[in-house]
Amino acid sequence: VGEPLITFLSDYGHAEEFVGVCHGVIAGRCPRARVIDISHSIPRHDVRTGALVLRDALAHIPPAVHLAVVDPTVGASGPESRRAVALATATADQVLVGPDNGLLWLAAERLGGVAEAVDIGRSPERREPVSATFHGRDVFAPVAAALAAGTPLRSVGEPFATADVRPLTLPCPHVESGLLAAHVLRSDAFGNLILDASAEHFNATGIAVGDEVSVEVRGRSLRGRRGVAFADVEAGALLLYEDASGSAALAVNLGSAARELGVGRDEELLVRRA
Amino acid sequence: VGEPLITFLSDYGHAEEFVGVCHGVIAGRCPRARVIDISHSIPRHDVRTGALVLRDALAHIPPAVHLAVVDPTVGASGPESRRAVALATATADQVLVGPDNGLLWLAAERLGGVAEAVDIGRSPERREPVSATFHGRDVFAPVAAALAAGTPLRSVGEPFATADVRPLTLPCPHVESGLLAAHVLRSDAFGNLILDASAEHFNATGIAVGDEVSVEVRGRSLRGRRGVAFADVEAGALLLYEDASGSAALAVNLGSAARELGVGRDEELLVRRA
Amino acid sequence: VGEPLITFLSDYGHAEEFVGVCHGVIAGRCPRARVIDISHSIPRHDVRTGALVLRDALAHIPPAVHLAVVDPTVGASGPESRRAVALATATADQVLVGPDNGLLWLAAERLGGVAEAVDIGRSPERREPVSATFHGRDVFAPVAAALAAGTPLRSVGEPFATADVRPLTLPCPHVESGLLAAHVLRSDAFGNLILDASAEHFNATGIAVGDEVSVEVRGRSLRGRRGVAFADVEAGALLLYEDASGSAALAVNLGSAARELGVGRDEELLVRRA
Repeated sequence: VGEPLITFLSDYGHAEEFVGVCHGVIAGRCPRARVIDISHSIPRHDVRTGALVLRDALAHIPPAVHLAVVDPTVGASGPESRRAVALATATADQVLVGPDNGLLWLAAERLGGVAEAVDIGRSPERREPVSATFHGRDVFAPVAAALAAGTPLRSVGEPFATADVRPLTLPCPHVESGLLAAHVLRSDAFGNLILDASAEHFNATGIAVGDEVSVEVRGRSLRGRRGVAFADVEAGALLLYEDASGSAALAVNLGSAARELGVGRDEELLVRRA
Repeated sequence: VGEPLITFLSDYGHAEEFVGVCHGVIAGRCPRARVIDISHSIPRHDVRTGALVLRDALAHIPPAVHLAVVDPTVGASGPESRRAVALATATADQVLVGPDNGLLWLAAERLGGVAEAVDIGRSPERREPVSATFHGRDVFAPVAAALAAGTPLRSVGEPFATADVRPLTLPCPHVESGLLAAHVLRSDAFGNLILDASAEHFNATGIAVGDEVSVEVRGRSLRGRRGVAFADVEAGALLLYEDASGSAALAVNLGSAARELGVGRDEELLVRRA
Repeated sequence: VGEPLITFLSDYGHAEEFVGVCHGVIAGRCPRARVIDISHSIPRHDVRTGALVLRDALAHIPPAVHLAVVDPTVGASGPESRRAVALATATADQVLVGPDNGLLWLAAERLGGVAEAVDIGRSPERREPVSATFHGRDVFAPVAAALAAGTPLRSVGEPFATADVRPLTLPCPHVESGLLAAHVLRSDAFGNLILDASAEHFNATGIAVGDEVSVEVRGRSLRGRRGVAFADVEAGALLLYEDASGSAALAVNLGSAARELGVGRDEELLVRRA
């Protein structure tokens, strides 16, 4: 048998020792585990970007325990509080561990949905005293390590109804008579805007690679081109393309589409062949 | 038997390949070793912050060879020079490897003190020619790897008196008639000020969670509140709290306490219930 | 037998999840492989810096499959396109995997030259559909993992003539009657200028450690000193030294030689004893 695999995604960054300490906790509980750091550069507290990056990364990673921590309400009580959870998915040998604030939702959907859910807030695997703010170290990492070591899901927490797992809702693109209405899901570190559409939506709108397009946003109308690589348009020009995860995206070659278009999350863009 | 564990902390950052090259050296000397990167973002040449981060991280990491490099006087001769050392601690199976400039002191204290010390400056394990500036690669990493591979401490260097290990002295908090005099040990990447006090000092001063506090610094008197999470005070307000390592700390919610208070290392703050 | 080793160098940075996804792909194809991240902070699209860093790092890393991705023309067709390749070197058990744009050349030279070359652009190991821009994930990482898992070189691609591997040409230093003409190869993250000369060139020019030197660049003449450590000259003063890889280099103590001298890549500097 091989070494158990844990993936790890967070908004901890690398300026402090948070990631390293979680690795230490994992090594203490499951010395054989390998840990793959998907990313720790999720924008701070940005649950949706974390959920999207996690979902897209899983397509390229073998079955594992997936530890994910983007947790803006850590330690909160009352209506702001969230469950700490471990979720087994319909796809075998895949478990998601993290806060139940939508972060795990898209990955769970991609893996066939949640088959079994446990609340790990009072897990026997947690490290006491649990700190007010560092549940990655005290709750999520030790539970992920215990699961990687072979501890059954039901031994690390209290079962609860899978219907109570908190969903993450995304906007929906639609195509009508040659017009694609899409929405901004997130921007990446280069200022590219990731949309909720895909290349299939381009095709349904009759926009082929090389075609000029018009993009209407906030009443402004911009010209661009559907291409494959950034260099397909001139410096400063707008490019509509399919990113490496299969999402429709907007870029400004050698620039920032986020800055130039000035659109925010969930805003609608109307795209048509020019 | 499991794989030997090495932890690694430094001020090398990630802009250059220094960390990766040390990993390569370790893999060459002890291919079975696992390396956990605690942090490589210690502020450049900041021995004390390195010592504090290392000490606090060890509480969450299993026994290992701990490689630590923050080494402002690397390659210096004369009075500026420091020993390169490997230190076995009173706690079994814990060895500290690095420059003897105080960096390892707090970790050694936490692990029961130094039981045995060797000078590795001319270790048979070092990689020759030893460069003037990169002793992480040429001295510390190969010695740490040799120790992880099972080489006895006395085979990697020359024994010297444990009383000659260079200490790191920290300021001391004190409580008197409801007044806590504490000092700034360091600031973190978010501008929070880590103090030499703990929650026990708050309690001895009669400051409970939720209480308003007065903080006197450089003749200025500031108002704040003892809380548990940043959100316990308004944006821009001063928070006195216990951080995830159990240290007393000062934060400005959504701001920087280091910038707003303008206090430097070792400065005294007088804290009382308001 | 130990675990197979893969080293990984790129210009992907850590702001996005590219590195983590490649680690995932490797874990899927060769779960036993260990991956050492040499650096992912190569300046974006800077093939030469990548080639120099890779070459210098290999001196300290055991035999491995070396995965390297700095690939400004990824996905291009026509005259801009480059081969994707795997290169076995004359030194046994060393394979280089990456774009054939010069990135692998200096490492191959250092390892005795290319013994066998295969084009992996249509490798049976690639992940389909191959994206337009992320060949690290879809071509290079899976091929590197397959090689680490023991797949023979000829099974991962189509052989081509080793003479067709694209070279990387560097400028050449020369010494004549006490004058060293050297060139800037790259600058590092601290603004130090790495030259194409070595300490042997200093010696051939009669410049000993401690000597004052004159550096002529763009018609300006500057004074400096040959030293060993930055502290050998005053703050703001020019230092000529041998870096940890054995290259001649120019630094400004507590400053940036790149900024102060304002010289670019391949520019000539004339160095003599003052």
